[in-house]
Amino acid sequence: MNLAILGMGTVGCGVVEVLLMNKSKISGLMGEDVTISHVFVNNIDKERDVDLTDVKLTDDITDLYGADDIDAVIEVMGGMEDTRDILKKFLEKGIHVISANKDMLAKYIDELTEVANENDARLLYEASVAGGIPILHAIEHGLNANEIHKVMGILNGTTNYILTKMTNDGWDYEKALKESQDKGFAEADPTNDVGGFDAQRKIVLLSRLAYDRKVDIDEVPVTGINNVELKDIETAKKEGLILKLVGKSEFDDQGLSVEVAPVFLPSDHQLSSVGYEKNAVYVNGNAVGETMFYGPGAGGKETASAVVSDLINCWRNAGRKQFNLTPQQTASVKPSQSNHKYFIRFAAEADALEKHLAGLKVEYSVLDSGAETTVITSPIDPDQLEQLKQDQNFDIEAIYQVEGD
Amino acid sequence: MNLAILGMGTVGCGVVEVLLMNKSKISGLMGEDVTISHVFVNNIDKERDVDLTDVKLTDDITDLYGADDIDAVIEVMGGMEDTRDILKKFLEKGIHVISANKDMLAKYIDELTEVANENDARLLYEASVAGGIPILHAIEHGLNANEIHKVMGILNGTTNYILTKMTNDGWDYEKALKESQDKGFAEADPTNDVGGFDAQRKIVLLSRLAYDRKVDIDEVPVTGINNVELKDIETAKKEGLILKLVGKSEFDDQGLSVEVAPVFLPSDHQLSSVGYEKNAVYVNGNAVGETMFYGPGAGGKETASAVVSDLINCWRNAGRKQFNLTPQQTASVKPSQSNHKYFIRFAAEADALEKHLAGLKVEYSVLDSGAETTVITSPIDPDQLEQLKQDQNFDIEAIYQVEGD
Repeated sequence: MNLAILGMGTVGCGVVEVLLMNKSKISGLMGEDVTISHVFVNNIDKERDVDLTDVKLTDDITDLYGADDIDAVIEVMGGMEDTRDILKKFLEKGIHVISANKDMLAKYIDELTEVANENDARLLYEASVAGGIPILHAIEHGLNANEIHKVMGILNGTTNYILTKMTNDGWDYEKALKESQDKGFAEADPTNDVGGFDAQRKIVLLSRLAYDRKVDIDEVPVTGINNVELKDIETAKKEGLILKLVGKSEFDDQGLSVEVAPVFLPSDHQLSSVGYEKNAVYVNGNAVGETMFYGPGAGGKETASAVVSDLINCWRNAGRKQFNLTPQQTASVKPSQSNHKYFIRFAAEADALEKHLAGLKVEYSVLDSGAETTVITSPIDPDQLEQLKQDQNFDIEAIYQVEGD
Repeated sequence: MNLAILGMGTVGCGVVEVLLMNKSKISGLMGEDVTISHVFVNNIDKERDVDLTDVKLTDDITDLYGADDIDAVIEVMGGMEDTRDILKKFLEKGIHVISANKDMLAKYIDELTEVANENDARLLYEASVAGGIPILHAIEHGLNANEIHKVMGILNGTTNYILTKMTNDGWDYEKALKESQDKGFAEADPTNDVGGFDAQRKIVLLSRLAYDRKVDIDEVPVTGINNVELKDIETAKKEGLILKLVGKSEFDDQGLSVEVAPVFLPSDHQLSSVGYEKNAVYVNGNAVGETMFYGPGAGGKETASAVVSDLINCWRNAGRKQFNLTPQQTASVKPSQSNHKYFIRFAAEADALEKHLAGLKVEYSVLDSGAETTVITSPIDPDQLEQLKQDQNFDIEAIYQVEGD
């Protein structure tokens, strides 16, 4: 069984390590040994921690197109349209593709799946969502007796690390961001993480699979954590509320509501105890009810666990009719119609606010008051929320949804 | 696709409900409609909440042996040797079997798997462990790139409900047991649950699958919760420790250590926040590290979620070489060689205890003292533990392992 690997960064090296470390188990399950035959990288001279002797190492992708002995391709190099085009070439030849590339997949998965299906190839991408957690497999197989109505997850380790440090240790946002950069969780330009865009790609892939609908990523609203203030976290903490950046989506006859935003969760919520760089995904099915899947969201070997399991599973199923989920319909994305509770900090004193909120028939309790007033509302409907946001006499300094009844 | 169901209690009715509720999705995945052709029950006259019109309802199992149109059998009736023999008959004809019967499987799964493999049939049993949580699927597929070294779970909803009530509400054991019986979680004779035997069967099935070893259930030590005293829970709670009945096993070159026992967990441990009748399983793999899977451990539709997913998955894979894991070796069960911390309540005053523990070179901190003294030890080795237990001058009134460093 010959394997080509595109990209040899942290995850690529992790794949090589895991294939070696667990060689005997993997060969047993696959019925044959895996040989890494080709590795494609940008820089063939770079020093790497893994032994690539006997591997055809190349920086020319056409070397791989020409090879007729590749059975599966693992793509862990990133990139958008170029990478899509490369993967299409392999799928067109009926070669299975395993990708960890959430950025590209969130945009082009439907296109790639179509090519895969036309050529009886499998396209698997477990590692692209929540790292080592086998959440796509759980949705596609373990929970497939269910219609799924809700998915909610802590899908980005960097932001979860930052929010955990702010919540547990009272660090401000800048200090927590700096440490996560020093530790290698966050990149020099952290926009993708702290802006919520990484989580956005993952909730798109999760929602597509859970609801069997195409999801247009450009329709998914995103709020990052870059404007989160420590004082709001601390005020809410006293009330037993923990701030988490969540990707969440709900699906029903009316359509799909989906977004990424920082949300306050009750401290006894399963997702609240998911700290630091860990990830977790909550799935609600109409038979099973509430389930949650927890584990590492990143890391070389951790992510490679998902990549290599994909490899084993696609190989064990080779030769039978392939099942790549191919949604026929596109989800109609709509604002949430549910009534939610909100944590709101107004630029107003409590007395003035009282009449204002009474006039809008909004019930609330005050958490903190002074020149600004922080409240938690009872569940309010989207109209009331809109009125609150639009009143220019009562500016909202900060607003977060609060999960729970 | 014709389906026979053996047993029509809570889970059997749940299966009928889920097949109806999610008919369109299930048919789509399976490529054809599922028809419940036969139902075997003890009492055909009993009133049931589900519609069994057009189903051949029988109390004579030989009616099903005679039928030549059954493609798969779901067994949700319980029973030991009789049930094993019945299931063998179906497997011998190459008919797939899905069973939720942990009691029988924990003892006879190797025997049944052998028959299944000889006849190219699949034997699936997701529902037998942790209800609706797709944990067996996760171990067998989602995490199969890993060698697994540790599995630990809250595997019994009744005992978790009782311990949660004792911990959160200060109820004593008897009151919590009574309520769990009133709510229908615990049976009139609660021995299987509170004695830890239900969890024992589940940790046997989990360990067998995780480590690819046969496990002799009679070698697995069990301590139930029937002797747990509220005062120990309350003393430990002040230290941030939560008592949970866990099934846990660790596997390495030296063998398998496995047991069921009440254990104190730190309150920030992922399993600590699993409350009431919920279940969760923690799995540690050598690539992925720590993962956890959470959900409902019981219930009609919840358990049926696992049963019906097994049905879909075995049918989608029909026609290819079957993979029923068949361990070739039997695990050598040994006592844990790890050093653990212990919560111990001695029938002794603190002063007298001090010299005693110093003599044994056991470090500890005192949680509570008086006529009895409660301590938490630093990690001690199995020999020190044995010496502590055997000293007749310092009787141990209660002892629990404490998870963590």
